[in-house]
Amino acid sequence: MSATAYQSLCQKSREIALLGNTMGVLGWDQETYMPKGGVQYRAKQLAWLSGKVHELSTSSEFQQDLEAAENGTDGKDLIEAANLREFRHQFNRATKLPQSLVERASEAASLAKVAWAESREKSDFTLFAPHLSILLDIAREKADRWGYEDEPYDALLSNYERAAKTSEVAAMFDSVAPELADIAREAVKRSAETPNLIPDTEYPIEQQQQLNREIAEDIGFDFNKGRIDTTTHPFCTGIGPKDTRLTTRYLLNDFTSSLFGVLHEAGHGLYDQGLPEDQHGLPVGDSSSLGIHESQSRLWENHVGRSRPFWSKWLPRAQEIFPQLSKLDLDGFLTSINRAETSFIRVESDEATYDLHILLRFGIEREILNGSIAVNDIPEAWNSRFEKLMGMTPPNDGQGCLQDIHWAMGGLGYFATYTLGNFNAAQLHHRAMQDQKVASAFNQADFIPLLNWMRTHIHNHGCTYLPQDLIERASGQTTTPQYHIDHLKQRYL
Amino acid sequence: MSATAYQSLCQKSREIALLGNTMGVLGWDQETYMPKGGVQYRAKQLAWLSGKVHELSTSSEFQQDLEAAENGTDGKDLIEAANLREFRHQFNRATKLPQSLVERASEAASLAKVAWAESREKSDFTLFAPHLSILLDIAREKADRWGYEDEPYDALLSNYERAAKTSEVAAMFDSVAPELADIAREAVKRSAETPNLIPDTEYPIEQQQQLNREIAEDIGFDFNKGRIDTTTHPFCTGIGPKDTRLTTRYLLNDFTSSLFGVLHEAGHGLYDQGLPEDQHGLPVGDSSSLGIHESQSRLWENHVGRSRPFWSKWLPRAQEIFPQLSKLDLDGFLTSINRAETSFIRVESDEATYDLHILLRFGIEREILNGSIAVNDIPEAWNSRFEKLMGMTPPNDGQGCLQDIHWAMGGLGYFATYTLGNFNAAQLHHRAMQDQKVASAFNQADFIPLLNWMRTHIHNHGCTYLPQDLIERASGQTTTPQYHIDHLKQRYL
Repeated sequence: MSATAYQSLCQKSREIALLGNTMGVLGWDQETYMPKGGVQYRAKQLAWLSGKVHELSTSSEFQQDLEAAENGTDGKDLIEAANLREFRHQFNRATKLPQSLVERASEAASLAKVAWAESREKSDFTLFAPHLSILLDIAREKADRWGYEDEPYDALLSNYERAAKTSEVAAMFDSVAPELADIAREAVKRSAETPNLIPDTEYPIEQQQQLNREIAEDIGFDFNKGRIDTTTHPFCTGIGPKDTRLTTRYLLNDFTSSLFGVLHEAGHGLYDQGLPEDQHGLPVGDSSSLGIHESQSRLWENHVGRSRPFWSKWLPRAQEIFPQLSKLDLDGFLTSINRAETSFIRVESDEATYDLHILLRFGIEREILNGSIAVNDIPEAWNSRFEKLMGMTPPNDGQGCLQDIHWAMGGLGYFATYTLGNFNAAQLHHRAMQDQKVASAFNQADFIPLLNWMRTHIHNHGCTYLPQDLIERASGQTTTPQYHIDHLKQRYL
Repeated sequence: MSATAYQSLCQKSREIALLGNTMGVLGWDQETYMPKGGVQYRAKQLAWLSGKVHELSTSSEFQQDLEAAENGTDGKDLIEAANLREFRHQFNRATKLPQSLVERASEAASLAKVAWAESREKSDFTLFAPHLSILLDIAREKADRWGYEDEPYDALLSNYERAAKTSEVAAMFDSVAPELADIAREAVKRSAETPNLIPDTEYPIEQQQQLNREIAEDIGFDFNKGRIDTTTHPFCTGIGPKDTRLTTRYLLNDFTSSLFGVLHEAGHGLYDQGLPEDQHGLPVGDSSSLGIHESQSRLWENHVGRSRPFWSKWLPRAQEIFPQLSKLDLDGFLTSINRAETSFIRVESDEATYDLHILLRFGIEREILNGSIAVNDIPEAWNSRFEKLMGMTPPNDGQGCLQDIHWAMGGLGYFATYTLGNFNAAQLHHRAMQDQKVASAFNQADFIPLLNWMRTHIHNHGCTYLPQDLIERASGQTTTPQYHIDHLKQRYL
């Protein structure tokens, strides 16, 4: 009985995933190749599929199978237990919200995105404020319906980082905030004294693509099961068990921009390509959390891609492709790609200052959700806190509290995962390098043993384990910021 | 009552179309950008969607709405009547076949395609023959279940050319076969005496793309609602009311290959872009038939794209882009692109010989279906008839009866529409040119009035009218081969 209910549940899950992956193709196409005129019809297609996914995910048949499988007396193996845990979590998440709330949230986000875009362009927060108020009300109602232990923010954070507790994340962030600020200040000061030696000349796009592709292949990205395209906002999307697509964007005068973009997205892509294929379409076939996913992108972007061994191999090749680099030596190049500068804009910031942007957002998000900052007071709170962190005040809200799309999409609770990803990346890299084979290969610019370590300890488990269990099994302890701090000190001080 | 049932029917139709268009995106992606590894999962996605389309198209709810709408006492306008006519036709087509037959046909075609590819590669007809026998049995069973007036072939032809009668098509083909053969013979003889003056040198792909795009825009293809990509087998697919995608392929040493490919597919695309948008997702929002669709592709490829006015405008631009053309004069260029040569391969053949390939296939198809040619005797029948038509015998079956994929896909009855398209193209072009504004603009290489004529007389009607009614309304008479004969004589003799 139990085996049958479980199998039936898995079949339903795979059908739902098939529709989700179809949405993935439509979404990818929309960002890459779809002609402008296609946008309205595409929205209808996505709405239909999304409605069908919701219908199938919340059906009484799904519920019956789930209950029967949970109540089955047969011994459940590790994978089966993990799938049931996640089936239950997802089913509760989906069914605790009434359809009217789901629709209200979707409509509010659509309107908010439009208002946000105009608001940001005009640097006029008052255009976005009423929308944000509505989104906050909806977020609070969702949190109430989902339930939480300590504070509403827990319920939202859990959307992105399974089983994370706000208070624990906050304690972790608070514990390193002063040190992060010190490192950033010192790194910026030192960088101001050293010039960027990479010539500000033209790097033809096709040659950038050539270099990026060689590098992505070298770190193990499988182009038989993936590809790289061009979009305004880079992303990685897994749209099938053997189909993982990255995108990047190109600056004609800075080849490192697209390259680090590709390394970042390829880090996500390597994780997707390493997920357990036989579990595709079931929860265990998926990644563990955003904080784990981001650890993989940051690992390849920063710990590999900005390292000395990496460029001892790739600088000569880059010099072949781009003759204007020929006069650069390895030290000068490394100093140039590892400079730190304060920036108003998170997505343009470097490793040394990035986390300060996140800590700012996490704090403000938590306080606007619990009401201790009113929506209309966000610009002032943002600017004064930014001044404290970075020693400068955004000239306008477009370069301040309006810069990110996350809130306009209703994505409260998301930002923390970026810094959790940085912590996890450093911790996993540190642990992997304790394996002598991984370390000695790394130092000879062979990163495949590092990839294999991640395959074994992270990728192949999918979401069998909750994020903190996974990190602990892989590295011996739960997420610990110290490795990231050590890494930043070593890189910048 | 009737209005409500009709509206409900339309809503169902639009939902089915939305899924069909989603299959369109997945299919387009599969041919253009999908990594190799994605193929198996993509097949599953397409199978799910195709099953859902079948389920919705044959549901009892659809049938009830259809019957209620048909029995409604309200006066039906032209559009409503046409939609109901096609709803009924499609519903009967879909429901007269038992599910088991549909699945058998789909499986047989999948296996046949694989066998055909190997069979063609090895030029060994015996590998494909047993599959073709099965496909013929299935085709006969389908024809029996669908019903027909005179002969089973009627039922298959109707799949592609609504309301066409085999005997009438055969009579038309027979009436011009001798003349077509005479023209081809004479054209080939004359071409053998005149050299191809276009240099056999390299034409970089990006520059071919540039020229193709300028030309496609100039004849009215709207790139806000469409695009051009690269595939092995060129095609045009409409995947949304404002999203029409063409593909072509490039030969480095022959820029005219991709260019005429683009003109051909853009002809299809212009038709799609001109269909009545408010009827998208309903039968009337779709094209009238393959023979009408092919008339549009052939019009732009041959009547426009190989004409003197066209190249009087575009040869200078081509010479700017490709300096190796600079010594060519207009006469020499026109003679070179309008040469005729006998070829074993249909898709490589020119205007003068193309229809002979079709007449051969149409005759053999009809006879293998009624059993007067046994499957095993096809190679012999093909070769002896080819010898009679073209004066040469295919050296092997790969270049003979195995060259086309149509039969392996179960597409019996398709070929005739290519030559019907040629007839229609010449007839519509002739009629449009009787409009002085169209003709004088044409002669000054402004083809937009010609496009607008096609919009008014063909595109905008969708399938309001059955193909022969549409042709008659547009040109004053039903499909008449003489205009095509006259066109070929004028071009080649």
